[in-house]
Amino acid sequence: MLLSKNAFSQVSKYSSSVVNQFSTSAVATAPKPRHLVSMLELSSEELANLVSKAGAFKAQVRSGEPTPVEQHQKLLGKLAALVFSKRSTRTRISTEGAVSYFGGQPMFLGKDDIQLGVNESFYDTTRVVSSMTSCIFARVDKHSEIQELCAHSSVPIINSLCDKYHPLQAIADILTIKEAFGGETQGLKLAWIGDSNNVINDLAIACVKSGINVSISIPKGIEFDPEIAAKAAEIANENLGTFEIVNDPQDALPGADIIVTDTWISMGEEAQKEAKLKQFAGYQIDQKMIANGKASANWKFMHCLPRHQEEVADDVFYDESRSLVFEEAENRLYAAMAAIEGFVNNKGDLLK
Amino acid sequence: MLLSKNAFSQVSKYSSSVVNQFSTSAVATAPKPRHLVSMLELSSEELANLVSKAGAFKAQVRSGEPTPVEQHQKLLGKLAALVFSKRSTRTRISTEGAVSYFGGQPMFLGKDDIQLGVNESFYDTTRVVSSMTSCIFARVDKHSEIQELCAHSSVPIINSLCDKYHPLQAIADILTIKEAFGGETQGLKLAWIGDSNNVINDLAIACVKSGINVSISIPKGIEFDPEIAAKAAEIANENLGTFEIVNDPQDALPGADIIVTDTWISMGEEAQKEAKLKQFAGYQIDQKMIANGKASANWKFMHCLPRHQEEVADDVFYDESRSLVFEEAENRLYAAMAAIEGFVNNKGDLLK
Amino acid sequence: MLLSKNAFSQVSKYSSSVVNQFSTSAVATAPKPRHLVSMLELSSEELANLVSKAGAFKAQVRSGEPTPVEQHQKLLGKLAALVFSKRSTRTRISTEGAVSYFGGQPMFLGKDDIQLGVNESFYDTTRVVSSMTSCIFARVDKHSEIQELCAHSSVPIINSLCDKYHPLQAIADILTIKEAFGGETQGLKLAWIGDSNNVINDLAIACVKSGINVSISIPKGIEFDPEIAAKAAEIANENLGTFEIVNDPQDALPGADIIVTDTWISMGEEAQKEAKLKQFAGYQIDQKMIANGKASANWKFMHCLPRHQEEVADDVFYDESRSLVFEEAENRLYAAMAAIEGFVNNKGDLLK
Repeated sequence: MLLSKNAFSQVSKYSSSVVNQFSTSAVATAPKPRHLVSMLELSSEELANLVSKAGAFKAQVRSGEPTPVEQHQKLLGKLAALVFSKRSTRTRISTEGAVSYFGGQPMFLGKDDIQLGVNESFYDTTRVVSSMTSCIFARVDKHSEIQELCAHSSVPIINSLCDKYHPLQAIADILTIKEAFGGETQGLKLAWIGDSNNVINDLAIACVKSGINVSISIPKGIEFDPEIAAKAAEIANENLGTFEIVNDPQDALPGADIIVTDTWISMGEEAQKEAKLKQFAGYQIDQKMIANGKASANWKFMHCLPRHQEEVADDVFYDESRSLVFEEAENRLYAAMAAIEGFVNNKGDLLK
Repeated sequence: MLLSKNAFSQVSKYSSSVVNQFSTSAVATAPKPRHLVSMLELSSEELANLVSKAGAFKAQVRSGEPTPVEQHQKLLGKLAALVFSKRSTRTRISTEGAVSYFGGQPMFLGKDDIQLGVNESFYDTTRVVSSMTSCIFARVDKHSEIQELCAHSSVPIINSLCDKYHPLQAIADILTIKEAFGGETQGLKLAWIGDSNNVINDLAIACVKSGINVSISIPKGIEFDPEIAAKAAEIANENLGTFEIVNDPQDALPGADIIVTDTWISMGEEAQKEAKLKQFAGYQIDQKMIANGKASANWKFMHCLPRHQEEVADDVFYDESRSLVFEEAENRLYAAMAAIEGFVNNKGDLLK
Repeated sequence: MLLSKNAFSQVSKYSSSVVNQFSTSAVATAPKPRHLVSMLELSSEELANLVSKAGAFKAQVRSGEPTPVEQHQKLLGKLAALVFSKRSTRTRISTEGAVSYFGGQPMFLGKDDIQLGVNESFYDTTRVVSSMTSCIFARVDKHSEIQELCAHSSVPIINSLCDKYHPLQAIADILTIKEAFGGETQGLKLAWIGDSNNVINDLAIACVKSGINVSISIPKGIEFDPEIAAKAAEIANENLGTFEIVNDPQDALPGADIIVTDTWISMGEEAQKEAKLKQFAGYQIDQKMIANGKASANWKFMHCLPRHQEEVADDVFYDESRSLVFEEAENRLYAAMAAIEGFVNNKGDLLK
């Protein structure tokens, strides 16, 4: 049989619906692992426990004592795949560090090493990679890629950044806030002055689940994800907290304990620089803006890095009495440890 | 002395014959390690023992128990180099997993990290890399590169794919067959419907050494390696088995227990797509072809992946009661473990 | 506030002077680690101890015994970053091997993985990477990059090659010399016939600190680093040794025990081939040149590799009774182990 050109070109687009037709039995036999996709699937208690675990790992590492052998035994001799379609220094280092802590071997697969869905179907690659590893950290472009990985993988998928969520950053951020405010998060106020993106999506959900009131200022013309906004408002409401979206930073700042932003120009978007700078006029955070905004006397600043000067001035970013940015970056390591502990070592039982 | 341009340009082509003139003494002092080049150098007993070891490692890993410390001690703190001139997801993951199991550190060196024979002589690089590692997994283009590595290396070279052989795949495949047919391989029949390549070369030898009859269908105009064919026929003969090459899939299928194919269009050959598709007209394996061919009632399907739709239809590839493809892929991990155990840990004593 | 284009373009050039304005307190709180920058900061006793430690690690590894668990415990579960802006096979392998020996996880970050000072300020990247790792091996272009890393890092920086120094090579070289001459270096003579570069800079300092007389022949028109020359002469003087720079190899060779060269055409300089070959006319080392130069009867040859034929002929390079090049390459592994032991495990106490 001579295949038509068309049939051939469909090879790499093999759809998961066709797969399901044949593979249901196999998928059904193994218990489905629990994946870390976003803050949405976690109960408030589970999130609190992840943050608390992260803090405990931090204390152990910071003690300067050697890695405890019982921790190092947990993934001893096992692979953890890092499937990263985009470069991501902090995510890579924190993940490799966390895997190593538990005795596992991080295996970094960048876009030159593996391309999901290109040389073979997404389904085939996922089944194969998951059959030889203990877990997969996936840093992808589209959220749908995370969903497809989760559908087919026999081991936990840890979402390490997609265009919709960034759960490891949110865990690190709640830990950072907890540390800066004496262990208590209930009743604090977080003001986000920046873009609408994956970081604030998951951070907003994590905040309202932690009793933190959220005020988000994004420029007019930029839409906040309506699904996230609805969920965040609903959860805030249940917790007697608040969630709001405004357009003027001065409306978000009053009483804010934590002021947060992120880069406006993500990797790959450099072409839109000019337009973005115009759109975000008045959004650069500096001491004057914060003073005018009447933030809390004890305000702190956070940024998930990498930072560019347009979104925050040096007088805030490098103010060591205010800025938590480097603590926050280091906390990514302990967030990754907590995620491995919960989703891999404890098989998804996050309250253990 | 001013070197002529010509002399300079020869720098990177330093031939091993010149090397031998000077280096014999050094090479002679160290005991030559045993390398894994192909199925040809293994006795039937050695192959059977490698497969059996692979099965034992699989049982240990699948048990869900932690990696035994005595296994993890075997390569503790030692490097294993992966010198890969071509991308190879399954080979890379299975190798890194196997090295990690024994406590070793896999060091992946792709074509951007190391280029054998380019910036310095092949001989120099091999001596240096082997002086600092416990073994070298080499995934190269030409078989001659494997031979040159073996000639100069002070540590075992594990052929992880060259244009002539693919021994780790063959070990994984025999394990897969053994598992699917109750532990016994003697008297089974394997039908290969596909191209003439490295995979079937080593698989054919492994089969006849395991008492499996082999029938290979390749399109008219494609030559099967005559050296392999002669060896395979000779070994089959000694074992009272059969080895044959045909051109029509229907001539290979009767009574076949295992039906195997592989991609027709290897990495780098995408330009020849059209011509290949024409040449392989009638070679797509599907349920109808197999029914017509009167395969054994209990037939199974294997494919070493990545798979493209032209060589096998979904109704076979994703038929979970027939297709062993994902088990086969996972078995690559245990084949790599068995190879390390035999060639590195046990210094080439494969019967240990 | 709308940022001007100019302000935006300065983002990635954030200067460390501005940083100091804000970050002094944080930098001041943590004790500054000791870094390995060059041979200059080491006392003769410290250098001798590093070399001696390297020899001890070699004996352990060469014994064929498993890696001792107490060594493997030292960096157990901790990351060591390899920040390499240029490819470097020997440096990479030896570093990854040394880190693995101590139970650490080497994390290779090439120029596609991380670009210091490009996507965020050099300061930010250094603080973040050092907060999640146990040490940073940096193989950079400019010496100023090593200096900047040292200024900001909270963990030891190990200079793994910059345009001015190559300390790990110097340690390996002194070990190689010690081994070849019965453990004693005092009063030996080393002749360098080649280019003026980072390798001879650090090797010259290491030699005069080890009581080895140094004679350097570099072609007329090439300048030897005046700072290094002055320091080397001063140290040689204190030790009653000699240090000289000449232009004719025949003036450097008389009585030489060790003859050393290096490639003239470094990576990235291939365009200057023709000119370099002309400039180095008469510099190719061969048996005849050495005989004419009246080197010591027991002369040995060293080269840090990769080697090209123009700088040394096969009759010297592959003369196994003279050439120490492969021993020297392997010794890079033990030099890296000694550096980790001294700067990381023993926190800079090199006499421990």
